[in-house]
Amino acid sequence: MSNYANAKLVEEKVFKDPVHRYVHVRDQVIWDLISTKEFQRLRRIKQLGTTYLVFHGAEHSRFNHSLGVYEIVRRIIDDVFRGRADWDESERLVVLCAALLHDLGHGPFSHAFENVFHTDHEYFTRQILLGNTEVNAVLRKVSPDFAERVALIIEKNYTNTLAVSLISSQIDADRMDYLQRDAYFTGVSYGHFDMERILRVIRPRQGQIVFKASGMHAIEDYIMSRYQMYLQIYFHPVSRSAEAILNHVLKRARKLYEDGYQFKMKPTHFESFFKNEVTLEDYLALDENILLAYFQFWMDEEDAILKDLSRRFVNRDLFAHVDLNPEEEPERFAWLVEQVKSIGLDPEYYIKPDSTSDLPYDFYRPGSKSTKKPIYLEMPSGEIRELSEQSHIVSAMANNIKVDYKVYYPKEIMFM
Amino acid sequence: MSNYANAKLVEEKVFKDPVHRYVHVRDQVIWDLISTKEFQRLRRIKQLGTTYLVFHGAEHSRFNHSLGVYEIVRRIIDDVFRGRADWDESERLVVLCAALLHDLGHGPFSHAFENVFHTDHEYFTRQILLGNTEVNAVLRKVSPDFAERVALIIEKNYTNTLAVSLISSQIDADRMDYLQRDAYFTGVSYGHFDMERILRVIRPRQGQIVFKASGMHAIEDYIMSRYQMYLQIYFHPVSRSAEAILNHVLKRARKLYEDGYQFKMKPTHFESFFKNEVTLEDYLALDENILLAYFQFWMDEEDAILKDLSRRFVNRDLFAHVDLNPEEEPERFAWLVEQVKSIGLDPEYYIKPDSTSDLPYDFYRPGSKSTKKPIYLEMPSGEIRELSEQSHIVSAMANNIKVDYKVYYPKEIMFM
Amino acid sequence: MSNYANAKLVEEKVFKDPVHRYVHVRDQVIWDLISTKEFQRLRRIKQLGTTYLVFHGAEHSRFNHSLGVYEIVRRIIDDVFRGRADWDESERLVVLCAALLHDLGHGPFSHAFENVFHTDHEYFTRQILLGNTEVNAVLRKVSPDFAERVALIIEKNYTNTLAVSLISSQIDADRMDYLQRDAYFTGVSYGHFDMERILRVIRPRQGQIVFKASGMHAIEDYIMSRYQMYLQIYFHPVSRSAEAILNHVLKRARKLYEDGYQFKMKPTHFESFFKNEVTLEDYLALDENILLAYFQFWMDEEDAILKDLSRRFVNRDLFAHVDLNPEEEPERFAWLVEQVKSIGLDPEYYIKPDSTSDLPYDFYRPGSKSTKKPIYLEMPSGEIRELSEQSHIVSAMANNIKVDYKVYYPKEIMFM
Amino acid sequence: MSNYANAKLVEEKVFKDPVHRYVHVRDQVIWDLISTKEFQRLRRIKQLGTTYLVFHGAEHSRFNHSLGVYEIVRRIIDDVFRGRADWDESERLVVLCAALLHDLGHGPFSHAFENVFHTDHEYFTRQILLGNTEVNAVLRKVSPDFAERVALIIEKNYTNTLAVSLISSQIDADRMDYLQRDAYFTGVSYGHFDMERILRVIRPRQGQIVFKASGMHAIEDYIMSRYQMYLQIYFHPVSRSAEAILNHVLKRARKLYEDGYQFKMKPTHFESFFKNEVTLEDYLALDENILLAYFQFWMDEEDAILKDLSRRFVNRDLFAHVDLNPEEEPERFAWLVEQVKSIGLDPEYYIKPDSTSDLPYDFYRPGSKSTKKPIYLEMPSGEIRELSEQSHIVSAMANNIKVDYKVYYPKEIMFM
Repeated sequence: MSNYANAKLVEEKVFKDPVHRYVHVRDQVIWDLISTKEFQRLRRIKQLGTTYLVFHGAEHSRFNHSLGVYEIVRRIIDDVFRGRADWDESERLVVLCAALLHDLGHGPFSHAFENVFHTDHEYFTRQILLGNTEVNAVLRKVSPDFAERVALIIEKNYTNTLAVSLISSQIDADRMDYLQRDAYFTGVSYGHFDMERILRVIRPRQGQIVFKASGMHAIEDYIMSRYQMYLQIYFHPVSRSAEAILNHVLKRARKLYEDGYQFKMKPTHFESFFKNEVTLEDYLALDENILLAYFQFWMDEEDAILKDLSRRFVNRDLFAHVDLNPEEEPERFAWLVEQVKSIGLDPEYYIKPDSTSDLPYDFYRPGSKSTKKPIYLEMPSGEIRELSEQSHIVSAMANNIKVDYKVYYPKEIMFM
Repeated sequence: MSNYANAKLVEEKVFKDPVHRYVHVRDQVIWDLISTKEFQRLRRIKQLGTTYLVFHGAEHSRFNHSLGVYEIVRRIIDDVFRGRADWDESERLVVLCAALLHDLGHGPFSHAFENVFHTDHEYFTRQILLGNTEVNAVLRKVSPDFAERVALIIEKNYTNTLAVSLISSQIDADRMDYLQRDAYFTGVSYGHFDMERILRVIRPRQGQIVFKASGMHAIEDYIMSRYQMYLQIYFHPVSRSAEAILNHVLKRARKLYEDGYQFKMKPTHFESFFKNEVTLEDYLALDENILLAYFQFWMDEEDAILKDLSRRFVNRDLFAHVDLNPEEEPERFAWLVEQVKSIGLDPEYYIKPDSTSDLPYDFYRPGSKSTKKPIYLEMPSGEIRELSEQSHIVSAMANNIKVDYKVYYPKEIMFM
Repeated sequence: MSNYANAKLVEEKVFKDPVHRYVHVRDQVIWDLISTKEFQRLRRIKQLGTTYLVFHGAEHSRFNHSLGVYEIVRRIIDDVFRGRADWDESERLVVLCAALLHDLGHGPFSHAFENVFHTDHEYFTRQILLGNTEVNAVLRKVSPDFAERVALIIEKNYTNTLAVSLISSQIDADRMDYLQRDAYFTGVSYGHFDMERILRVIRPRQGQIVFKASGMHAIEDYIMSRYQMYLQIYFHPVSRSAEAILNHVLKRARKLYEDGYQFKMKPTHFESFFKNEVTLEDYLALDENILLAYFQFWMDEEDAILKDLSRRFVNRDLFAHVDLNPEEEPERFAWLVEQVKSIGLDPEYYIKPDSTSDLPYDFYRPGSKSTKKPIYLEMPSGEIRELSEQSHIVSAMANNIKVDYKVYYPKEIMFM
Repeated sequence: MSNYANAKLVEEKVFKDPVHRYVHVRDQVIWDLISTKEFQRLRRIKQLGTTYLVFHGAEHSRFNHSLGVYEIVRRIIDDVFRGRADWDESERLVVLCAALLHDLGHGPFSHAFENVFHTDHEYFTRQILLGNTEVNAVLRKVSPDFAERVALIIEKNYTNTLAVSLISSQIDADRMDYLQRDAYFTGVSYGHFDMERILRVIRPRQGQIVFKASGMHAIEDYIMSRYQMYLQIYFHPVSRSAEAILNHVLKRARKLYEDGYQFKMKPTHFESFFKNEVTLEDYLALDENILLAYFQFWMDEEDAILKDLSRRFVNRDLFAHVDLNPEEEPERFAWLVEQVKSIGLDPEYYIKPDSTSDLPYDFYRPGSKSTKKPIYLEMPSGEIRELSEQSHIVSAMANNIKVDYKVYYPKEIMFM
């Protein structure tokens, strides 16, 4: 480790943050990372994608959230873990960096975008950490293998599994920040839980985090918040309607490109995506400003589908939706397809089935094959128990989530 | 008036709002206005311009704020004014529309942008209201002169001066919303005041709003919030530094265009601005996504100044600043200019003097020539008094504001 | 009905309330009721009994809560029900009065007190409403049978069952106020739920309240808040320890009185309670100030038990507790009794078994014999469904509550 | 110093606090002090005296506030001062004890009570610290002179003036807690200021606390909060009306005692007060429960004045008030006295002039003879400046406070 690893700012810097009041930075490395262009780029990626079209307050960026995750991990390490057995203080900086940088590879409207172009934000996080970037330059100054260690934590392959569980488990700093932050910016009351209490009972133990059983009710409340936020915010059908349109705009643009269509405005920033030859530089250049600027350019294109779908997204003229699982009700779905055709629209672009199982959110399901570690309680006896064994509420919530199937279609069609 | 003026939605619609909890819409006209593309465009204009580069939470749009102003006016009219003498209920709809639409003409980073291109958001508000727009189509359905009446309220020329004062006075719904909203999104504690109390004491009286004297302390608190928000948020030097750079990027681009420079990417959306031939359509097409997309395109331009300044803005590599009034300290200013030259930079683009008197915010100065009406108290005797006559605190704040002069310059220069 | 029933205050009066911001009063009858000495007496009865000895903020009185229940009912009637079919506006005043007065008969530390003296706060509520009181004088001015109607609503025997369900059902104004209020004063985060949303979906329907199914998640959150408040606050073992001591102080004092013990300070205010001859006047005269003053007087008594137990309560030197059901573990319980004897204490006064089934709080158990109506949802089809049929979460919470058994004993004993 | 001085609890204990979220206790000494009967007695003294009769939420006790002051001082010392030059860590415990115990000597309804009986809560604080008390027993275990040192800090005579200024200066922990706490419990919005920011800029410097000038606006906001809280809460005329009655009840009881009146219920707890022979034991025995119990006993006395005034207080049948300075308007005052006589009441007990200069609250007046130190700013140059020199707002507030004169009288009189 270089001296740089331990360098402190002359005076602590703070960021005013509406969720945590202040985000505190003492480490020079953290300060330098925040100043890199790759980290600043997160200001141009919204945390909740299309959700702002339903909850108008949800215009906050991944920059906000990344600072918040860093701050929670910093508090856990500096206020709770320091000096405890089972915690190795020499892991402090690498964990803080992983917390700050865990979302670095996200692109514009991540989920809908990846669905079309098959890019992978986890892959690009690694590329940014290890490639020719300002972030990598900062990390390399700490030590030659430091960037790789940060990447391994984010990828959940790091040898110190305790470090991993702070960033990535069923009750990690990532979720604790986004539930509170998304609740704050949307204005809903569901995301509140007593994080102060949870931070008081979190403990490092043999390669994972555990929670003193005396805090179980605060954790139940966190699980309930999570459940409500998913149902109310993350799975909101109107925001998924906007995602459906966004998906089809991109799909149509790629199809036109493949077919040799002459765009009025050359889609320079999209070409490597259309061709599946995306470099790190291309990836970083395409943020939400650029993507939405193209949508606005495309409103003037000749192609009727591209033009119309772009307009629908930009002016928020979204699709309607109906509860319908095409596999279970193939005739009803076929009828809808016919209706769309009958008004002269192409079902390929004007119908979109969707289910919540496609979404990048999960409930607490301790038995599932999720790579996220379950939540463990430390009983007064010292014994360790998985949360849903102890909590009837959590057990009930874990076992009763149903997948929701919807089909999105133009409002012009009157559904029977 | 058509029936349309009185049409109500079958069921009240609400928007979840973090500041007012809910924004309530019953009127079909209001609902239709919100759905227009011109109103939806306000989602692409940030309420606080470059402030998000200092207070990361301040990413909220003018769409948010516009709904908030509407909601406050709706509450005043429906909960307080209805049924009182001096209030003409037939003005309800036109005032609600004016509240909702008062910021419709704002462009991207309004203040810095107008400073370069001499566009005027008030002029464009009128154009959008009366021109060939979706907004105008809705307003025309109410009555032939309805759009003109909305425009007159926003321009403060409407015959019913009470209606004007709700939207535009020293304590109007506009300010009450933005102080609270900007405080909420930045996370500072200064913007809080007891709006509920103020709404309880507001009264219509002879063509203006007055406040029962029993609420004076709540109004003092509002004035104090305003004072603190200006000093802490609206005048923040780092956000003004970002504005300085943004200003110079645009100035450089125009200069290059005028000089016949060949841009790699044709600046289609800016051409009419460069030529001072801006149509309403051009104006509406240039929002913050487009503007920032161009900044990112310009980072690849040949011209070193345009390229460098664009990069500084996008990557948040801002200017430093020093307290300096060039008129009072011309030698110190000249020294700074020389320093900039000596490192090979053009002072025209790398030095920017700025003062708070240039900013579009004002304190409460009842004696000034502001077109905004002062705040009147209704004494228990029925007599009307101007606030600063009654309140020592307000009088002190009104008379003691100093203009702050700064000069912005590249960080590479070490100021002595 | 007299004119008095419709009399309005010249100007609306408000009470500043930390939970609802303001409590609004327009009706002369309500104003007059608040001013009666019987209603003012509620300032001298704490809402949460001994809980302030654990959560120091919980010093709020039943006066606070009573105003809050009134305010919630007023909002439901005036903002939601007015003008709807199934709602009879002529019931407005009687329901508001019942909301305001529903807790009028509570005595000091209600639960522990009633347990010793077998008084019944519901009985005394009726006495105060119908007896020779200031409250009755106000109610009689409305109409001869008005006081009786108020009593019938509170007793759940009123013919208009919709009126009853506002005050007394599984999601009534009483619970909505106390959950929020008790959370506010204790400072815990669990009591928050989105009451604004619930008030938006509440509907009168055929003699009961129902909730539009679109608000189900807000109701789930309310049920979760209730569950957490019970476990965290209402069932807190330290507050029950204080209740155990209080219970034994009173039991001892009665025993001494029955045995002809000469008190230094004559227990005038308790005599009729000791003799089971309590008049309304006696009942009203014994509030928490008086009761606690006697406890302090009794710290100087000769009787060692009365003296010691009183001291323990006043100086907060409480009992310890252990999880123990005497019926299931008689030998362990017998051991504890022996321990108490062995240090010279009388188990009659120094041991107290207690279970949460003794407490005056219940969870949501739709199948139970509770007289409280369950929660009904109105489906989009118009069909009515009981909440736990629709909500897995609620079903889980309703079915999984276990009774908690504890035994309280002096800290001097080291439990094995 | 004994080992006891450094003894830590095995596990940190916390109190849930609505204002500071949690109050944290690690030191055995602090824990033991909280458990003493003299500290527990503060639960029986309301923080805001009669204010709960106007703002019903203000039922919180001095126990609450004392924990809060301790917590603020603990945060300043442990989070900010530790390790800085000018701060002597060996003073930590004595300052924490002084913070916790600074209000220990307050009696029931302190101000009104002292006004009648000429007791002095500062004198009794010293008595409790140094006398035969549980508090003294704890302090003596630390070291023989420890109790005296705590007393000296509270009395502002301690040699380490920095320690004094934390508890007692124009911006001390005492005020920062009570402004926020009183705002929280009353529910008004005025008491909010950014304490987190203030704690970030507080610094120890040469025997006093100073504030980095960068935090000046947060301090201005604190001064504004203080100003508003005084005008809105602390000087509220209805609460002063209740104090006037309370004062006269006590005055009448003493007069009757002096005249040999035979009380039905012997006023045991008051006798030493009536005779000016108050011992520490007598003082501690008279809390608000006892005092109010006597008021209720006195409602049954023969003496018409004692009976009536007691009833007025208990049932909240308060005096009216008028703006009137008897010295400036003697004739108007004389007229009022005549009116009172004319309805058969004794002006000695039924009229009470009062001015805000009598109240135990002061505004920020840096030039006054207050023993409280003014607020100092540390400029970037290192220079120290008094706040009102730098802040126009504060200067305006400091110089413009007027004394408010009122006269309280029975509502039966119609004032002209």
